[in-house]
Amino acid sequence: MNQIVAGHSRSIPRRTVPGADLQQVRAMDAQDPLASFRARFTLPDGTIYLDGNSLGALPRATPDHVARVLREEWGQGLVRSWNAADWIGAPLRVGAKIARLVGAQDDEVIVADSTSVNLYKLLAAALAASPDRHVILSETGNFPTDLYIAQGLAAGGLTAGRNAVVRTLPRDEILAAADAQTIVLLTHIHYKTGERFDLAGVTQALRAKGALVVWDLAHSAGAVELGLNRAGVQLAVGCGYKYLNGGPGAPAFLYAARDLQPGLVSPLSGWMGHARPFAFSADYAPADGIRRFLCGTPPILSLAALECGVDLALEADPAELARKSARLCDLFIACAEAACAGAGLTLLTPRDAAARGSHVSFAHPDGYAIMQALVARGVIGDFREPDVMRFGFAPLYVGYEDAWRAAQALGEVLAGEPRRDVVRAEVT
Amino acid sequence: MNQIVAGHSRSIPRRTVPGADLQQVRAMDAQDPLASFRARFTLPDGTIYLDGNSLGALPRATPDHVARVLREEWGQGLVRSWNAADWIGAPLRVGAKIARLVGAQDDEVIVADSTSVNLYKLLAAALAASPDRHVILSETGNFPTDLYIAQGLAAGGLTAGRNAVVRTLPRDEILAAADAQTIVLLTHIHYKTGERFDLAGVTQALRAKGALVVWDLAHSAGAVELGLNRAGVQLAVGCGYKYLNGGPGAPAFLYAARDLQPGLVSPLSGWMGHARPFAFSADYAPADGIRRFLCGTPPILSLAALECGVDLALEADPAELARKSARLCDLFIACAEAACAGAGLTLLTPRDAAARGSHVSFAHPDGYAIMQALVARGVIGDFREPDVMRFGFAPLYVGYEDAWRAAQALGEVLAGEPRRDVVRAEVT
Repeated sequence: MNQIVAGHSRSIPRRTVPGADLQQVRAMDAQDPLASFRARFTLPDGTIYLDGNSLGALPRATPDHVARVLREEWGQGLVRSWNAADWIGAPLRVGAKIARLVGAQDDEVIVADSTSVNLYKLLAAALAASPDRHVILSETGNFPTDLYIAQGLAAGGLTAGRNAVVRTLPRDEILAAADAQTIVLLTHIHYKTGERFDLAGVTQALRAKGALVVWDLAHSAGAVELGLNRAGVQLAVGCGYKYLNGGPGAPAFLYAARDLQPGLVSPLSGWMGHARPFAFSADYAPADGIRRFLCGTPPILSLAALECGVDLALEADPAELARKSARLCDLFIACAEAACAGAGLTLLTPRDAAARGSHVSFAHPDGYAIMQALVARGVIGDFREPDVMRFGFAPLYVGYEDAWRAAQALGEVLAGEPRRDVVRAEVT
Repeated sequence: MNQIVAGHSRSIPRRTVPGADLQQVRAMDAQDPLASFRARFTLPDGTIYLDGNSLGALPRATPDHVARVLREEWGQGLVRSWNAADWIGAPLRVGAKIARLVGAQDDEVIVADSTSVNLYKLLAAALAASPDRHVILSETGNFPTDLYIAQGLAAGGLTAGRNAVVRTLPRDEILAAADAQTIVLLTHIHYKTGERFDLAGVTQALRAKGALVVWDLAHSAGAVELGLNRAGVQLAVGCGYKYLNGGPGAPAFLYAARDLQPGLVSPLSGWMGHARPFAFSADYAPADGIRRFLCGTPPILSLAALECGVDLALEADPAELARKSARLCDLFIACAEAACAGAGLTLLTPRDAAARGSHVSFAHPDGYAIMQALVARGVIGDFREPDVMRFGFAPLYVGYEDAWRAAQALGEVLAGEPRRDVVRAEVT
């Protein structure tokens, strides 16, 4: 990890950035063009929720929509709803909506399975399609499931006796090692540090060396502007339950650029990816286009919840989302550093908004205990081994005052001040 | 197909089995020890639902339970519910409940992904674990996704350059072809004909020849008695959305006999199957036991719905379920044959209850149109190419009068009688 974050790690300077005051942050909230979205979510009273990078919040529309799917579509429509309620079209329909969020064509994204399973499909299909590629190159410290999936593929072996190899390198050594024999697997925004790759620049540099690039967009979709087509992205997977607010364990998405689709066949060749699923023919023939990446029967209840989250995100201006995310993180960093000066925090996240995602990570030797104390005060972030506190700023429902209060709470915890309810005390 | 069903196909004899009358079937319902379960489901008025073999009905408890998971666990508990509401334990918890339904140990079943994905895990793990096995042997006309998954594995190749081969044979030739080089993949109850294999007998005969046997229990769990341990079953997958009433696209289950688990490593080596998922270590190490077959983050909303269906099934006596299933199918066959004598129906399903599952299939050259006419009358079955009408009898919510009325409706459609509402006409 040290090699990855070295460029961005620094101790907190003493009050070089002065924290804002309550009046200022309330003025920021008052002028926030996205402020009205907060009321579209259900969030518990007395809580500042800064863990949308792990599990997004519940959109207010979701319970009623899911109830309708349960009671009307399932309960009354029963099996007829596969057609009558277009359940069968849900993976493509919700995929097309996500495509608009991430800057892709409607027929380049599909919702299916989990991020891990989708990654397996893409890596295996890419290895099978290109006999010269046998190295999966990733970043040391990448999100573990990405590495595990690559390792599982390599352990299982591949076509024609050619075994794949998984290599990991520090971020700044990847480009030099990439070539026409490699598939490069990168997570756009790092789960621990919040560092963001330059999507277009890195994609183009790697492609220029002949590499095929697979991006994990788990912490990106719904939080930062993506523009997959514009960036020349070839293949990607992403998560439904973080900034897309699709609910715990929501199905994931898979993106494949249109020109690559015909050459890629999913190893998970289930019936829903068949050209004619209901012909019940004996031999597998992949569907034309992105539907070939479906495998089993789509999880309709989970898809219904995800669709609510995606619909809500589509109402927001993506540029405003990115701008607010940057300002929230800037504010939190400044206020936390002001409130915690000298208390031993180390910022892991880049100060440059263009170089980070929508969460801020601080390291502290007592990070676990500090986060527990924050949660007890109603400020919910999370902790990652060995010493990382993460604070996520989902721009649809986190406000500037939330960021400010969270920073004050962090300062109080570090100063050993007695617990105080950070929300109810002053909010009317 | 002809070879498979030849032993059971026969034209309908003219009134060799007289149909029951309404008074008789109402008496059967009155004496049904499972009759009270009907009220635990929500079913549309004016409908006789005979497609629970495709999508089970909605348990009354499900919407409120899912609403609580949405509003309280997700909406209020947020990310804390992974522990506080034991979301993280749901795949094992619901798996253990299914284990009780299918006659397995609690730690031999897990809920995850789809049936297709789970089958891929087991087949790939089994092939990797046993270097001498390289033939996946299945039945001609097995449910297509099972064949497709095996084909995808074979096309993708396997460990150490050894490619697997998929062979299909008619049912009565499989035992002779099985040996220590084969993995035999069979569906316990045939999706089209309803034929049931003798689970224990076939398993033991195949094992005696050195084969490893993988069962697809999609049409079995919740409908017929299974006793997986008693039958010596080694590996199996099954479906959550048919007789377990888990909802459209509900997650599936995977069974691995305890002694086989240590030797099987899922190729879909995602983080939730890791020995220590939250240690975020760089290298994959499978969890001890059945949890190693998890891959990505479990779909909590879908799992919540499935758990309601499983809980309901657990309240019923499995022997009673099997007995009622047999009697419903017997009654429907007898009444349909009586009502449709000479109309060109061919029974595809065995008359011997021990040799079939919980649905009855009739072939008819006009099967598609006939089923459409039945649906228009409120009798919902389904149609499978080229000429098969399926009528499913889920013993938890279908009654004897339902079976009788469906048979009368079938007779009326075949006789060209004008449409009549089969339910509202006489039910008070």
